[in-house]
Amino acid sequence: MKCSIPKGTRDFMPTEMARRNYIFDTIRNVFKTYGFEPIETPSIENLSTLMGKYGEEGDKLLFKVLNSGDFMKDVDFSQEYHKVAPKICERGLRYDLTVPFARFVVQHRDQITFPFRRFQIQPVWRADRPQKGRYREFYQCDADMIGSESLLNELELVQMVDEVFHRFGINVCLKINNRKVLAGIADLIGAPDKLVDITVAIDKLDKIGLENVQKELAERGLTPEQIQALNPVFELNGTASEKIAQLQTLFANNETGLKGTEELATLFSYIEAAGIRCQVELDLTLARGLNYYTGAIFEVKALDVAMGSISGGGRYDNLTGIFGMPNVSGVGISFGADRIYDVLTELEKFPSDLDQSAKVLFINFGPAEQAYCIRYAAQLRAAGISTLIYPDSAKMKKQMDFANKKLIPYVIIVGENEIASNSLTIKNMATGEQQTLDINQVVSLLK
Amino acid sequence: MKCSIPKGTRDFMPTEMARRNYIFDTIRNVFKTYGFEPIETPSIENLSTLMGKYGEEGDKLLFKVLNSGDFMKDVDFSQEYHKVAPKICERGLRYDLTVPFARFVVQHRDQITFPFRRFQIQPVWRADRPQKGRYREFYQCDADMIGSESLLNELELVQMVDEVFHRFGINVCLKINNRKVLAGIADLIGAPDKLVDITVAIDKLDKIGLENVQKELAERGLTPEQIQALNPVFELNGTASEKIAQLQTLFANNETGLKGTEELATLFSYIEAAGIRCQVELDLTLARGLNYYTGAIFEVKALDVAMGSISGGGRYDNLTGIFGMPNVSGVGISFGADRIYDVLTELEKFPSDLDQSAKVLFINFGPAEQAYCIRYAAQLRAAGISTLIYPDSAKMKKQMDFANKKLIPYVIIVGENEIASNSLTIKNMATGEQQTLDINQVVSLLK
Repeated sequence: MKCSIPKGTRDFMPTEMARRNYIFDTIRNVFKTYGFEPIETPSIENLSTLMGKYGEEGDKLLFKVLNSGDFMKDVDFSQEYHKVAPKICERGLRYDLTVPFARFVVQHRDQITFPFRRFQIQPVWRADRPQKGRYREFYQCDADMIGSESLLNELELVQMVDEVFHRFGINVCLKINNRKVLAGIADLIGAPDKLVDITVAIDKLDKIGLENVQKELAERGLTPEQIQALNPVFELNGTASEKIAQLQTLFANNETGLKGTEELATLFSYIEAAGIRCQVELDLTLARGLNYYTGAIFEVKALDVAMGSISGGGRYDNLTGIFGMPNVSGVGISFGADRIYDVLTELEKFPSDLDQSAKVLFINFGPAEQAYCIRYAAQLRAAGISTLIYPDSAKMKKQMDFANKKLIPYVIIVGENEIASNSLTIKNMATGEQQTLDINQVVSLLK
Repeated sequence: MKCSIPKGTRDFMPTEMARRNYIFDTIRNVFKTYGFEPIETPSIENLSTLMGKYGEEGDKLLFKVLNSGDFMKDVDFSQEYHKVAPKICERGLRYDLTVPFARFVVQHRDQITFPFRRFQIQPVWRADRPQKGRYREFYQCDADMIGSESLLNELELVQMVDEVFHRFGINVCLKINNRKVLAGIADLIGAPDKLVDITVAIDKLDKIGLENVQKELAERGLTPEQIQALNPVFELNGTASEKIAQLQTLFANNETGLKGTEELATLFSYIEAAGIRCQVELDLTLARGLNYYTGAIFEVKALDVAMGSISGGGRYDNLTGIFGMPNVSGVGISFGADRIYDVLTELEKFPSDLDQSAKVLFINFGPAEQAYCIRYAAQLRAAGISTLIYPDSAKMKKQMDFANKKLIPYVIIVGENEIASNSLTIKNMATGEQQTLDINQVVSLLK
């Protein structure tokens, strides 16, 4: 029988787990210092909660769970498969953390004290075609603050991004834009109905260059005059405050654009006062999921590695509206754990002691020595030190090989002399150095 | 639109999350001090991996995932539903952590150094009828050591059970038995083929009493003589060593029974030497999933609360055999997080500070004060203190209500005086006491 797992899914070995947990723990700890609280939602949601929330493509990518029992009863199988699916599957796997969070807020609105900050670190599932770096099961790490329109929330997201990547030792650039500014631009050039087309096209500026963006804008129905009127957007330059000054002139007669510019001005003044270590840039070509965001939008890129965005988010004004609870404003951020993993690997920034399985191994020479080891192992464990006793009195070489393969940094050797003198001989596996110590000295050494 | 989640699933609010994480972290930390390493397997496995591993009933309770795309193509829907299901579902949700672990070991055998200790804390899914305390999605916390037959492993499981429940402050009784002893008994009474019937029946002794167990044994085809021959099992008494002595006499001519008795004798001698705090009992009426275990079996019950078993496990000699890798012996333990949650709730043993969302809230009086607060909040957060700034300059009462509802133990109040003297006024919400301090004093107070 061949053992395998479904395409696009992964097993995680202890070394990968240690690295992944380092990422999750770092992000979680930063979330907590900003007063975010953990929640969890079920892996399985009613399909009615999920369908229609991610566009037509998203509906196709939802994993559907077959009804239990006689799922075929009263179902007409002469219809097309996408009509049959919802009849035989009432539930599906979580596709992201945002829609379940919106459902959670509406369902538990009476138990929640607003403004509410929650974080959620859980897997999601998408029936996407698997490829390098794209999986069918992967974790999302989301933090959202809802029930407050204050731009202090945006500042704190920026501070969290700064803190998380500072802890990781990854140099990043945080790009900021505002959806209202983009809407103002669409107004200005006389194409308010083309907002999505404009942003989809200019979002590609990095990848395809200005000329191709302009070509795409033409294909999307913008006139040459409208395309030319966009030039000020691409030509904006200088510091954030200089760009903001130029936008204020540009939007002199445009309310939406001016509002967005003011929000940017306030946020950047906060950022300057707070003292952010990472690079922060006002980037008018940043677009991100526009159907969804209504104010600030963020995106984070690593500076020293070629990699897509490793974090992103923004302000939305109507997340819970889809579940019948309108006018709840929120702002959130999501960290891409898999990409952060790849960046840390490429930059060799993982802490070096993550790979340890146990801190120390007691070599097992036989029943008498084993009894002595059990007693002292208990003391090391009580001190919080990860401790192994080799379970059998196998050959010394086999036991030492085991310690080496498992990257255990110390072994303890107990023979007649140690038992007689109530001591332990401890060997540093890296240096080969051996010392005979009492238990308290061993605890101090290994702590 | 009505918001709901599927029957048998749960949302977890921050308070529940804090309590659940306290349970998982405690168990995880004990696992780690014994040198267990974390792994994770995908939520979705190939159905071929899962089917036939949990009995006929288990196959029915597997959640099956509908194939993506045109799942109906070339499928004959005139068959019965349980024949159609595997045609339209290639994958299913993890049903337990044991079978995926066996698959993992076989699949990655070349990368694993044996003996291998792994722990795994992940959700599993079962399409069981939901009822009080039984969910369709729940976490299992498993630790297994494989590739070693040493009884030292059994001892270490006992030590872990002792340590975990000691940390929880739950008084428990750990019951131990051995499958070979049960097999020996079946041999002795001349019914080796009735081993499963015998154990299923005597497993119910606690619930239904001796008379009913004997009735059930008769229904299961044992003769009155055989049933009477079982009496020594029910009549065993005294300490573990006394019971072991009686078993040695009983099994004088039975190899399997004697082997099991010797294993028990060794394990109990280890346990005595190691100094276990919890109550440990040799219980011949303990049976547990017999098709599966081959040596020691364990079960843990809380002493001060009426509740089923809260932990259990045992030795198995052929876990990976189902995937074509025979003769790998292992021993494992599983902690029942949901039941432990209920026990801790009933005994009021959860640490009292788990419910805090943030440690401190800065009251927001307006732009000037807010800027001052941002600076000091950053310093508290840098010291690892969970800190909130109220995002708007709402009415004082509203902000204080927020602190009370969120159980935030301290608020910091900043006005003109504090700004002028570069200080912070901090209020203890429980006592009402207020102090004006500098930032270092505040850090010391909140650390």
